[in-house]
Amino acid sequence: MHFQNPVFIPGPTNIPERLRRACDLPTIDHRSPRFGDILHPAREGVRRVMKSETAEIFLFPASGTGGWEAAITNTLSAGDRVLVSRYGMFSHRWIDLCQRHGLDVTIIDAPWGDALPVERCAEVLAADKSHEYKAVLATHNETATGVRSDIAGLRRAMDGAGHPALLMVDGVSSIASMDFRFDEWRVDVAVTGSQKGFMLPPGLAILGFSQKAMAASKEARLSRTYFDVHDMAKGYAQNAYPYTPTPGLLNGLAMACDMLLDEGLENVFARHHLIAEGVRAAVRAWGLELCATAPEISSDTVSAIRTPEGFDASRIVAHAAQTYDVAFGAGLGEVAGKVFRIGHLGSLTDVMALAGLATAEMCMVDLGLDIRLGSGVAAAQEFYRTEQGLRAVAA
Amino acid sequence: MHFQNPVFIPGPTNIPERLRRACDLPTIDHRSPRFGDILHPAREGVRRVMKSETAEIFLFPASGTGGWEAAITNTLSAGDRVLVSRYGMFSHRWIDLCQRHGLDVTIIDAPWGDALPVERCAEVLAADKSHEYKAVLATHNETATGVRSDIAGLRRAMDGAGHPALLMVDGVSSIASMDFRFDEWRVDVAVTGSQKGFMLPPGLAILGFSQKAMAASKEARLSRTYFDVHDMAKGYAQNAYPYTPTPGLLNGLAMACDMLLDEGLENVFARHHLIAEGVRAAVRAWGLELCATAPEISSDTVSAIRTPEGFDASRIVAHAAQTYDVAFGAGLGEVAGKVFRIGHLGSLTDVMALAGLATAEMCMVDLGLDIRLGSGVAAAQEFYRTEQGLRAVAA
Amino acid sequence: MHFQNPVFIPGPTNIPERLRRACDLPTIDHRSPRFGDILHPAREGVRRVMKSETAEIFLFPASGTGGWEAAITNTLSAGDRVLVSRYGMFSHRWIDLCQRHGLDVTIIDAPWGDALPVERCAEVLAADKSHEYKAVLATHNETATGVRSDIAGLRRAMDGAGHPALLMVDGVSSIASMDFRFDEWRVDVAVTGSQKGFMLPPGLAILGFSQKAMAASKEARLSRTYFDVHDMAKGYAQNAYPYTPTPGLLNGLAMACDMLLDEGLENVFARHHLIAEGVRAAVRAWGLELCATAPEISSDTVSAIRTPEGFDASRIVAHAAQTYDVAFGAGLGEVAGKVFRIGHLGSLTDVMALAGLATAEMCMVDLGLDIRLGSGVAAAQEFYRTEQGLRAVAA
Amino acid sequence: MHFQNPVFIPGPTNIPERLRRACDLPTIDHRSPRFGDILHPAREGVRRVMKSETAEIFLFPASGTGGWEAAITNTLSAGDRVLVSRYGMFSHRWIDLCQRHGLDVTIIDAPWGDALPVERCAEVLAADKSHEYKAVLATHNETATGVRSDIAGLRRAMDGAGHPALLMVDGVSSIASMDFRFDEWRVDVAVTGSQKGFMLPPGLAILGFSQKAMAASKEARLSRTYFDVHDMAKGYAQNAYPYTPTPGLLNGLAMACDMLLDEGLENVFARHHLIAEGVRAAVRAWGLELCATAPEISSDTVSAIRTPEGFDASRIVAHAAQTYDVAFGAGLGEVAGKVFRIGHLGSLTDVMALAGLATAEMCMVDLGLDIRLGSGVAAAQEFYRTEQGLRAVAA
Repeated sequence: MHFQNPVFIPGPTNIPERLRRACDLPTIDHRSPRFGDILHPAREGVRRVMKSETAEIFLFPASGTGGWEAAITNTLSAGDRVLVSRYGMFSHRWIDLCQRHGLDVTIIDAPWGDALPVERCAEVLAADKSHEYKAVLATHNETATGVRSDIAGLRRAMDGAGHPALLMVDGVSSIASMDFRFDEWRVDVAVTGSQKGFMLPPGLAILGFSQKAMAASKEARLSRTYFDVHDMAKGYAQNAYPYTPTPGLLNGLAMACDMLLDEGLENVFARHHLIAEGVRAAVRAWGLELCATAPEISSDTVSAIRTPEGFDASRIVAHAAQTYDVAFGAGLGEVAGKVFRIGHLGSLTDVMALAGLATAEMCMVDLGLDIRLGSGVAAAQEFYRTEQGLRAVAA
Repeated sequence: MHFQNPVFIPGPTNIPERLRRACDLPTIDHRSPRFGDILHPAREGVRRVMKSETAEIFLFPASGTGGWEAAITNTLSAGDRVLVSRYGMFSHRWIDLCQRHGLDVTIIDAPWGDALPVERCAEVLAADKSHEYKAVLATHNETATGVRSDIAGLRRAMDGAGHPALLMVDGVSSIASMDFRFDEWRVDVAVTGSQKGFMLPPGLAILGFSQKAMAASKEARLSRTYFDVHDMAKGYAQNAYPYTPTPGLLNGLAMACDMLLDEGLENVFARHHLIAEGVRAAVRAWGLELCATAPEISSDTVSAIRTPEGFDASRIVAHAAQTYDVAFGAGLGEVAGKVFRIGHLGSLTDVMALAGLATAEMCMVDLGLDIRLGSGVAAAQEFYRTEQGLRAVAA
Repeated sequence: MHFQNPVFIPGPTNIPERLRRACDLPTIDHRSPRFGDILHPAREGVRRVMKSETAEIFLFPASGTGGWEAAITNTLSAGDRVLVSRYGMFSHRWIDLCQRHGLDVTIIDAPWGDALPVERCAEVLAADKSHEYKAVLATHNETATGVRSDIAGLRRAMDGAGHPALLMVDGVSSIASMDFRFDEWRVDVAVTGSQKGFMLPPGLAILGFSQKAMAASKEARLSRTYFDVHDMAKGYAQNAYPYTPTPGLLNGLAMACDMLLDEGLENVFARHHLIAEGVRAAVRAWGLELCATAPEISSDTVSAIRTPEGFDASRIVAHAAQTYDVAFGAGLGEVAGKVFRIGHLGSLTDVMALAGLATAEMCMVDLGLDIRLGSGVAAAQEFYRTEQGLRAVAA
Repeated sequence: MHFQNPVFIPGPTNIPERLRRACDLPTIDHRSPRFGDILHPAREGVRRVMKSETAEIFLFPASGTGGWEAAITNTLSAGDRVLVSRYGMFSHRWIDLCQRHGLDVTIIDAPWGDALPVERCAEVLAADKSHEYKAVLATHNETATGVRSDIAGLRRAMDGAGHPALLMVDGVSSIASMDFRFDEWRVDVAVTGSQKGFMLPPGLAILGFSQKAMAASKEARLSRTYFDVHDMAKGYAQNAYPYTPTPGLLNGLAMACDMLLDEGLENVFARHHLIAEGVRAAVRAWGLELCATAPEISSDTVSAIRTPEGFDASRIVAHAAQTYDVAFGAGLGEVAGKVFRIGHLGSLTDVMALAGLATAEMCMVDLGLDIRLGSGVAAAQEFYRTEQGLRAVAA
């Protein structure tokens, strides 16, 4: 393993030096006050990154899937009805998890590449006069298709229907990279992980719970121990965990939040948008299309790029890995073989993005696609330099 | 945080340089073949450390508590009867977890400081002619009391009763430090973590499943997704995980196993025994007693030391941390305030152990206990040098 | 400091993970046998990288300038005549050093961008019937101009003249990246540093001495202590240094040699040549010229690129640093303001090189040069993919 | 190599986590402004640690021996007379260096274990009416014997004689650990290294030059290039070096100075004194004697301990390394075989020191010396706990 080239998978992302070091913490006593000096700033930082004043933040040693499980097992009981839309692999998987835990899931399917169909959700909720739905689950950014959904709109739909269901949002590949407003959208449970916008290694499921969700957790009967938020809250009150925590990752998380907040969240989002726009300019220059069906729903953290009919897009991923030692993301589920994905979140620069685009071009040409070398790079360069280079020269 | 002195908590342990570096892995594509080159050696290494030819090894991004949850949710169904003995905080917690998941737990209480009462278990099992008990749970090494139990004996008791229950063993603070024989003892589920004998940071729940446990998992109805061994096995078959794994910790685990196996498991156990014997010699020299009620059940990974009646043992832990920047373990549960604990597992030398003993002496004298400075150190030195120093001089 | 983008200075180079870790060695006793286990493999590795069977290798904690000083102070006496050609900043500096130490330096000036004028050297040597010249000094790769000189030719010239002078070669930016044949060329003193082809941080002056140079060192009267090779040799014989060595860097050097030799020196050279050819293709596509006046003398480790008359090339370097956080090399001495330099040695991939080329393009366009975005990148891509990508697809 | 036990050599010392990381810097462009942000704070920090307002600080990529060479070659000319006292291996070596560079050295020998004989120096200087001596050289802390000399007294002697010679002080093992007053003592050249009180890896020779020394450097004729302070000063004025610097070590040095100044120099000195006093209490308890012939000249950074007549002290060092993996220092030169040395400088705690003392005891007993195990440890414990433990309990 040489680790020379950056990775372009949609998470885990490239990790900044400072965060690698923060994570590589020598052993500390996780029952000492010293641990609290790591834990509380990490939780407070996450709360601020989620744009919340009041969310209870829970940090489980787990992946995002563990976060999904924590979200539902702490708030729901067997047989509870939940409303979910499916428009990609990750919304699909959360649905599967709900079903395994005995929830009664109403699925609204949308084409992969579309965003969450807010209108259809609104209709279902408006029709649910007796408030059978205990929760509405939404995937903010579908990592499989590179599509961002409208959580504010979903909240408006719920409010329009006067529906009291909990709003649970998978923000795994959006939080800390794209605008996410826990309080303003009145999110009840937000789920994310350490390995995306926080630019850390995987290993932490990060959740925000509203007070309403905390109240629901007292009634929730789905079985849980490892992911129990009450045990966790009791631990936090004593600067501790109910079990052995991961101090290194928590230390990294505290520092990641500092870095994000020091840069300014809006600057962080703008930076992701800038890089994403360059990638999208390249895709247009190649004459290809995004999986995302409309510009306004294109994700700023990952681009899923459709390859021509009859071409197996996964060949690009394999060829890039074998020949150029560069990692892209393959298509998943319904879009397997139809798209390849360029992750552009976390710790990435325009310069690094250009290396990824140049590599994608070489791969596509190597594999016989009708792409002009340098074309996408030039389009992205033009965008980046106009946004940044010209400004610097003028200044 | 200065990180100059070693820690003497019973895990997480001091981490060897090589393992810190192995864990601090730059981002790799966890869906690439490269990941398999980490995953499979790690699993194979763990299997060998558990002394098994056939165990299925599962590695969850979680703590040991997650491992307990994985053990029962994958093998049991609501209402199933399980037999457990309680003789310390960690056996207590596993029982609590079972109850939360709706199991019908028969508890055999033993005094904290005693080992698992094999005879009483034998009686219960012998009486269970209809084989109501689906599983027997045992804590191999009670970290709270520094007591090792006789798993071989428990297996003999089960065999003697002709009982088909699954044998599940918490080996969190024994495996990789003390002799553990998955195959010979016909353990069905073994649970451990990365942060003890494997000398790694916390973050991995490590499980071994026998083929019998795998078969049971097909019938088990307790709800699970994150900890599902079938999803995990399916992932492993494709060099992958069902969700985002933690490549750094897995890389560390692979290397930790290499280090342990290169040293030789029996040498690793002997090393732990040597250091533990020195600590026990010091305790005797101090005129204090171990929590462990008999020499033959004393743990080689942690010593819980009883302080005189009326003295709050937790003061030693607090004073050591504040004054000398040294971390010991406090008493938990029934022995809170009555014992303090010296962890002596993982990456530790006799020289480091002497530093811990010297510090404990200073703390006890500072706090008014009638201990002679240097007395415990001298007893341990005598032991260490006889075992090692004299041999070297003779050679 | 973000450290996200690679550096494109002609050394220090990007450092591979493994080497950073090897250098970051905890403190060891440099007077213990353990130190010898680092020292001797490092020296042996360097000897093999220099393609020598018999060179005495000396490793001083110093920069390459220290290496120059060690080369002359150990072999020459005040007033000794030496023959040197000047064709760039680094040959110029070595001359200056010689003069400061009281040597009588005959300088053959050549235009910056030309290689060492072997013919003119041959004439001088042929005319030197009384063998006044005690040494001939040559800069194998002029880092300032990106020019490789013909050391084999120089040796032939010396042999042709039957001249017994010592042949001292500055291989700072060639050794371990470009073919260097200590034995075949009968080099007497070779000088290099840790921070170029060895891909390490700076801090080691690395020298190879022939037996003839060792013999000369017994007569040499220039004053020296720190750089004395006899003190050093005496130390080495006892697994030690005459003063405190830098075990971390030496450990890194041992590993760097292992990496280079495992890859195969010819493969290492081919890799550098491949990347360099891509960069040169880009320069041609931009319509610019190299400082190197002929293709066959173009360096495989650094390209100095002439910018159009009237344009200050150093603006590119400053703009790249400020706007894109990318480091290129500025022109030095006679070519200051006339060239900018792209370093492409050490730990670099074609993908990283493309990022550098893309950045150079943005900078040049930002600053008003008539360059087409993507043009150089496309030329390099075409070269890289033909060499590597096509082969992989065909395989 | 396991790196578990601390080292007890008198430098290089144990390195704090933060400094290891600061040194392990990714490659930066050492010709960019960014480099100045490392260089200038490092120089400023060193100046403050030397207690100077005006010293010019020079940082050479070299060991302390390089620092000695820089001191004399920049200030003296061949044939210049210098006055030096010899009372240990390091004063001896500096003398040797002076002689090699053609200085006319007057040596005042004192028994190894004594401090610099100020009175005898005073006499020589008083007799030197024509001010033939251009410089007086002194070793502040003799690392070989564990003896601190009286530089303030030497300065008084020079002043008393009205002698204008330069005062050059080797503070390699004193500066940053013991009180050193560049301005108050009117030191002209102070020499130290990165690997002692600054707690860094070796690799930097650190010098302070007074204005008087800078003036002398304009006349000095000893040959030098690598160690030339004028080239260096010119580089510094442009945020650069005259050659490739070691940014990692400089970054570490800047942080080391921050750590020392944040702790407070007097606290740093007190900490070293505390640990040293504990070690000395242990030596007394063992019934052994220090090489230092009087308590008031005992070094706070290293203790050289005399072993009984007829016993080869180097056996302790070898046995400690082989059997306990602990590094002590051997005796050097005249005291080889007669002393072993415990280094107690840099990053060390009382707890770590106790581990060293306990190990020394085991070694001595293993090798047949009549030492009671635990005796020295107890004496040191009593000292440490009275100084620290009791205070904490009282607070």
